[in-house]
Formats: sequence, C-alpha cells, structure tokens
Amino acid sequence: MAIVTVLGAGMMGSALCLPLCDRGHEVRLVGTHLDGAIVDSLARDRFHPTLRERLPEAVRPMPVDALAEALRGTELVALGVSSAGIGWAVEQLRPHARPELPLFMITKGLRFEGRLRVLPDVVADALGGAPAAVAGPCIAGELARRVDSCVVLAGRDQAVLDRIAQTIGATYYHVRPTVDVVGAEVCAALKNAYAMGIAFGAGLHERHGGQPGSVATHNYESAVFAQGVLEMQRVVQALGGEPGTAAGLAGVGDLDVTTNGGRTGRFGKLLGLGLTVPEAIERMQGATLECLEILAVMRQALPSLGGDLPLLEHLIEVALDGKPLAMPFDRFFR
Amino acid sequence: MAIVTVLGAGMMGSALCLPLCDRGHEVRLVGTHLDGAIVDSLARDRFHPTLRERLPEAVRPMPVDALAEALRGTELVALGVSSAGIGWAVEQLRPHARPELPLFMITKGLRFEGRLRVLPDVVADALGGAPAAVAGPCIAGELARRVDSCVVLAGRDQAVLDRIAQTIGATYYHVRPTVDVVGAEVCAALKNAYAMGIAFGAGLHERHGGQPGSVATHNYESAVFAQGVLEMQRVVQALGGEPGTAAGLAGVGDLDVTTNGGRTGRFGKLLGLGLTVPEAIERMQGATLECLEILAVMRQALPSLGGDLPLLEHLIEVALDGKPLAMPFDRFFR
Repeated sequence: MAIVTVLGAGMMGSALCLPLCDRGHEVRLVGTHLDGAIVDSLARDRFHPTLRERLPEAVRPMPVDALAEALRGTELVALGVSSAGIGWAVEQLRPHARPELPLFMITKGLRFEGRLRVLPDVVADALGGAPAAVAGPCIAGELARRVDSCVVLAGRDQAVLDRIAQTIGATYYHVRPTVDVVGAEVCAALKNAYAMGIAFGAGLHERHGGQPGSVATHNYESAVFAQGVLEMQRVVQALGGEPGTAAGLAGVGDLDVTTNGGRTGRFGKLLGLGLTVPEAIERMQGATLECLEILAVMRQALPSLGGDLPLLEHLIEVALDGKPLAMPFDRFFR
Repeated sequence: MAIVTVLGAGMMGSALCLPLCDRGHEVRLVGTHLDGAIVDSLARDRFHPTLRERLPEAVRPMPVDALAEALRGTELVALGVSSAGIGWAVEQLRPHARPELPLFMITKGLRFEGRLRVLPDVVADALGGAPAAVAGPCIAGELARRVDSCVVLAGRDQAVLDRIAQTIGATYYHVRPTVDVVGAEVCAALKNAYAMGIAFGAGLHERHGGQPGSVATHNYESAVFAQGVLEMQRVVQALGGEPGTAAGLAGVGDLDVTTNGGRTGRFGKLLGLGLTVPEAIERMQGATLECLEILAVMRQALPSLGGDLPLLEHLIEVALDGKPLAMPFDRFFR
C-alpha cells in the first residue's frame, strides 16, 4: 500500500480516488484554489457535489495551503487540474519536486509553442522526471460508480509506467501502459474536436423534424467518426507518434465515449440544430468546452501538419469562424 | 446513364435504388420469391412497406420470374438478397452470367469451408468475374431518406471497381473503392458480433437500476468497442487482409452505426439485461440476427486464427453456449 496525493478535486481527480482507495492506498485529495466548496463538502460528510457521490473514508480532503503536508511521505502524485490550470499546478509542485517521485497526469491537452507539444513534455520541462499521463475512455462519474473502465497510461519510461500502472489499477480500472506519449495525448486532445463534429448529425436530424431512433442520421455520424479516426492517425504520424494508437483505446475508444457521454456532444448538437456559436456557448452555461480550446490550438498547428485534414479544417471553420455547416464528405477517405 | 438491375427488394436493395435513380439510371428492382408482397406494393403505389418510403418513379419493380427480362440490356447487377439467400441468388443468375457484366453485392457474410471465405470469392467461384461488395456504415432507412452515407466498395479489379463506383455514387452516397476485399468483408461480418457485445453494457446498466444518460456504462461500452476494433484487425491480418481497414469506414464506421442503429444492439442489450439467449431471440420476433450467424461461423474458424481474441471467445460463450456474461477486461489490450 502507498500514499498517493491527487492535486485537483474536480470530477476526474476525485473519481480516481475510488480505485486508489479500493486498492488500499492512503489518498490525499488536495483541492485547488477553485475547489474550496468541494473540499469543504468532502470534509463535512464526504459528499462530492459535482460527482454527486460520497467518497470513501480513506480519502483525506485537504486545501491547497496544505499541499506541502500532503506531499510529505507521498509515493505517487496525480495531477488532476484542468488543462488551463497546468501552469499554476506546476508552480505549486515545483518546490516539492523530487526526481524519484513519480507523477502522472489526468489533465489532457496540447500546446502550440512554435510546434505542437503534449502536456507531459511541458510538465517534464518544469519539474524534471518522466511524467506519465492517463488517456482513454473514462467518464469520471462512471469510474466513481466503479463501472469497468480501460485506460492507457502513456509515458517515456517503461519502468516508471509499470510501477504506476501496478499502483493505480483496480479490479474495475484496467490500466494499459504505452510508451507512445505523442499518440495517446494527441488522440486525447483531438477527440473533443471530432466528437463535436459527430454530434452535428443529431442536431441536423432534429432540425429537419426528425425524431431520435434507429433511422436518423447515424450514417452521417459514423462517417464523421471514421474520418475523425483517420485524421487522428495522420496527425499522430505527422508528430512522430504511432498511428495505430488512434485505432485503440486512446483514439477510437475515447472518441466513442466522448460522443456518448459528454458535454462536447451536446455542444456539437446545438451547432447542428442551427444555433450560432455564441448562442450554443451560452446554452452550455459556462461548461468548459475543450473542443474549442483544441480547435484554436490546431488552427495554429495546421500549416505544419501536411494537409489532408478536411474534417478538422471544417470544424475550425464552423466553430471558430462561424461559417455554415456543410460537411465535406467528398474530401473524406481519399 | 445506365440500366441497373437490383436482385432482392429487401430494405438495402431497395434503398440503393435512391442514389441510382438520382443519378438518372433506369433501375429494375427484382424481388425474390420472398419479396412478393413488397413487389406488389411497389407496383401499386411505389410504397415500400418495410422501408416505409415511396420509391422514385424510375424504379421498375419486377417479380423473380421476370429476371431474364430484367437482365436484358442491363449494364450493372447489384445483389441484395440476404446472406442465407446467396446460394439461391447465384443459381438464378448463373444462366445469365456474362464475364463482362459487372456485379456488386450488398449482401455481407463469411463462410467457413475448411477456412474462412468472403462472399465475393464464393460468388466468383460460381459466376466468374470479379464481384465487388459494398461495406461500411449505411443504414438502409437512412440511405432511402438521402442521409449522407460513406461506404467502401471492395473488389479485386481496380478498373471494375472504379467503373462501379462511378456509376452508383451520388451527391449523398459517397463510394470509396478499395482492393482489400478480405479486410472489408471480414469487418462487415464481424461488426455484428462486436456490436452485440458493446450493447451488453446498456443492458447491464438498466439491470442494475440505472437510467440512460451521460453517466451510465459508456466506459464499459467504449472499452468493448476498442477491443472489438483491435480483434477485427487481428482477424483481418490472420486472413491476409490489411489490418488498417478495421480502423476505417468498414470497421470503426460500421461498428459505430451498428451499435447505434441496429437490431443487433437491441439483442445484445436484452442479454445484458439478463434474459437467456432463447428468451432474447423470442423478444426479437423473428428478426434476422446476423450476430448469431457470424458467431457460429467464427467458432469453427477460431482454432485457425492464432488466438488472442478474448472478446470474440466470450461472445461465443455467452451467445452460443449460454454461459454467464463476465466481460474478460483483464485479457483486453494485451
């Protein structure tokens, strides 16, 4: 058994506490400065207000001021802040970083710094070591209810990976190590964009008077799904990763779960229904829209990716430039 | 413009008439001996009773007795009978077969004849030529309503493929030729089995008192989805096809559409709910269950496929042997 510290008490960081506790670890869940209400609620009666679940007794909720205390004696750190909070989190962790202390991220994202960079590399620059990252189909609310979930754990050091996977895996949390950090992280980020595009179909169907059912716009959606997987492969390859990763858990699997379970799908459907981008954003009531974040990053990166990404280009036009939706099927699968 | 004859007036054969008519072709739709009521209805007022749509005036419905007349002057034949009806259809066509008359199949399936064989090869043995076959995500009811659909057209002769694709493609029916017949056909058949397995999740969720929603059993379903794609790649490779085909329209795309739109999903959900196989079959009220057909074929083929297909093995145990459902996640993604 180990002491594990999770930084970030949002839905995913908190859900991760379930397998950790079920494995018998001592878990210290440190809220960020934005997680005050969550930490208070957890301290009161263990109820997590956004997960809407009670966390196990073995979880010790702590405020960010107590980070130094939380890291004392810890054997593994999980980084669970939002993608936008990575810079902040790195600053918090820097005074405590020890090269032998393994760290893994459940935060996902890509940065454009003259070229596309995956977050584990950005964090490695600041903290040293070989940070790992979880990717693959895992809705936090389901993990917190112990639904069987298969994820990949991507990192550049196989020994570190194996140790982390061994520590965090549980009977219902199946963790598969991979050294293809680029492939896993690119897919983890891009799936939000492509899931938005798949959801256009449901919106278009409803807009034309259709009802949900087995005859709807599934042909459209599945074609966009497959083209999305093809384009993920191309982007992964352009960045030096393994294209096959896009056909696995991190690509196909995560795209599927995001389409079925996420706010990204709701947002894409609103655009398909004919709402303008600002109208759709307003309807989402302040929800983080990773699809817009990643599209903004990919717009900068596009010229360096070698072309033939017609779906991605169209998603950028629709979601960032407000152009009308007209899926370029004739350019797909060429 | 061409004369095209479609043999089989079921849902898919009839839906195919839409793009053919919209391209300006003269279409002769020949019902089988089981399609009498459909042909009568079409002759009366063009209404297709199972598609629940009126077909265009350019479609000429004909009974099977008129096959010779229907084939006179025809430039392209589409085979749209059920998988079980292929032997019958071949016998009907044999007297009229001409090597220069291109034929393509919308019928899908695999045969085990000491080894696994794809249907276009079985038909080629009987009729000669290089029959092509359509695969990929296409629900007939949606094609008949002109929903954008992307499919692959697989065949061994690139020139024939290009000619057929050029003839049948329409503004909303996007046809992509491929010479990977084995890959496309194996995926087209296997997707029924894997879609059944994905749907177990929804049944299990409901069985445990869950409601449909964004927090349900999507993690489970997406893991099965990704493992299904991985196993499709393995089977395709074992049979000499291109594993990458499983990551495209014929694999990922068709698996997605089958999960969302088909009777296979309803059947799998019933098993997840805890019904026995005979109970679930009864509830499906005589619907063709391609998933059971393909699992029976794959059981014969399994020993020759080199192993590491834990999901397929479990689907066979559950659906053919009545064993309890216990998804072997620990054996996935190894």
